[in-house]
Amino acid sequence: MGELHLISTGKQSIDALVHISSLVHTYAHFIHIREKHRSAKEIGIIVEKLLQAGVPAEKIVINDRVDVAVVYGVGGVQLAHHSLSPKRVKERFPFLRVGRSVHTFEEAKQAENEGADYVIFGHIYETSCKEGVKPRGVTVLQQLTCRVHIPVIAIGGIQPAHVRDVFMAGAKGIAVMSTIFYGDDPLEMVRLYRKQMGESTWTF
Amino acid sequence: MGELHLISTGKQSIDALVHISSLVHTYAHFIHIREKHRSAKEIGIIVEKLLQAGVPAEKIVINDRVDVAVVYGVGGVQLAHHSLSPKRVKERFPFLRVGRSVHTFEEAKQAENEGADYVIFGHIYETSCKEGVKPRGVTVLQQLTCRVHIPVIAIGGIQPAHVRDVFMAGAKGIAVMSTIFYGDDPLEMVRLYRKQMGESTWTF
Repeated sequence: MGELHLISTGKQSIDALVHISSLVHTYAHFIHIREKHRSAKEIGIIVEKLLQAGVPAEKIVINDRVDVAVVYGVGGVQLAHHSLSPKRVKERFPFLRVGRSVHTFEEAKQAENEGADYVIFGHIYETSCKEGVKPRGVTVLQQLTCRVHIPVIAIGGIQPAHVRDVFMAGAKGIAVMSTIFYGDDPLEMVRLYRKQMGESTWTF
Repeated sequence: MGELHLISTGKQSIDALVHISSLVHTYAHFIHIREKHRSAKEIGIIVEKLLQAGVPAEKIVINDRVDVAVVYGVGGVQLAHHSLSPKRVKERFPFLRVGRSVHTFEEAKQAENEGADYVIFGHIYETSCKEGVKPRGVTVLQQLTCRVHIPVIAIGGIQPAHVRDVFMAGAKGIAVMSTIFYGDDPLEMVRLYRKQMGESTWTF
């Protein structure tokens, strides 16, 4: 069974984000607070509300703001090209689970060399979040997973029906955003992903 | 002798900021990297360049990004209303010097109660950075310094000629931005501030 990462949209109200997370968190391994326009204070408020809603601290991953993650004692951070490097973060905060978002093989290899625990790679399929940008596709995903030793989490337009192909390509997990946070029935959707993931990982 | 804080403008190139800082740092007690539009990675690059230029780590203060401050081992952070609270930062990183930027007595008192080491209060005089916003003036500054027990650093339109009045009002230091970083002769200007500060503090 691979990992299921849920990524916040950065466009919803705090209440909507917390409400949906509280519904679905038992089915997800990680919930990423990816709210680039929000201040450290606001991200802290989101963490407090998620904890109050019963989301375990170790499931919470904060995008970019390592300080908020450490101060609130959550499980991990997700770093991008504009963030502190995995190396510096791991040196100072070895207890944090550190992910790195990557778009190329070189970035993934660098993340691995710098001590990242995993990479999120994408986008794999067409997605409205990346309109006009050509998706990488599962073939490139497979090339990446063969050459990188840390777990690769696939992101971008992944529907439940894609899950099998993504895992067959060597991904150790999937990350989804709009299908959960913008979906009509987030709970039904997250269960569907988990069902597909369970069946897909049977094949290995 | 009070403290002299130099605050970056957030509008200059990294090279200009580093060059001017390298010229003037021996005359300043603290250099604040206040570059709100810049990423953690960029702020880290600025810190590295300042260190290479001979600015001591303990003189460097980073605005808002506690993570960058901790990872690069600089002396302090300057927090605003949208930042992590002084309390949370002090609890987790007691070795950091923590300043809080405030605009009212209530904010200053809260910062004191939350363990901030000092506040920066302003703006005191008319300044192009706060056009159309009425300055607080030295009378309000004096009222504040009487009621707050942690050091109050004054900011906003402070020219060398104002230094005496500001210190007479109980400020323990001044923070300046454009007169240094946009000045024709930053070195001459910083010396002028220090000269005024030396003479002003003789009077106590």
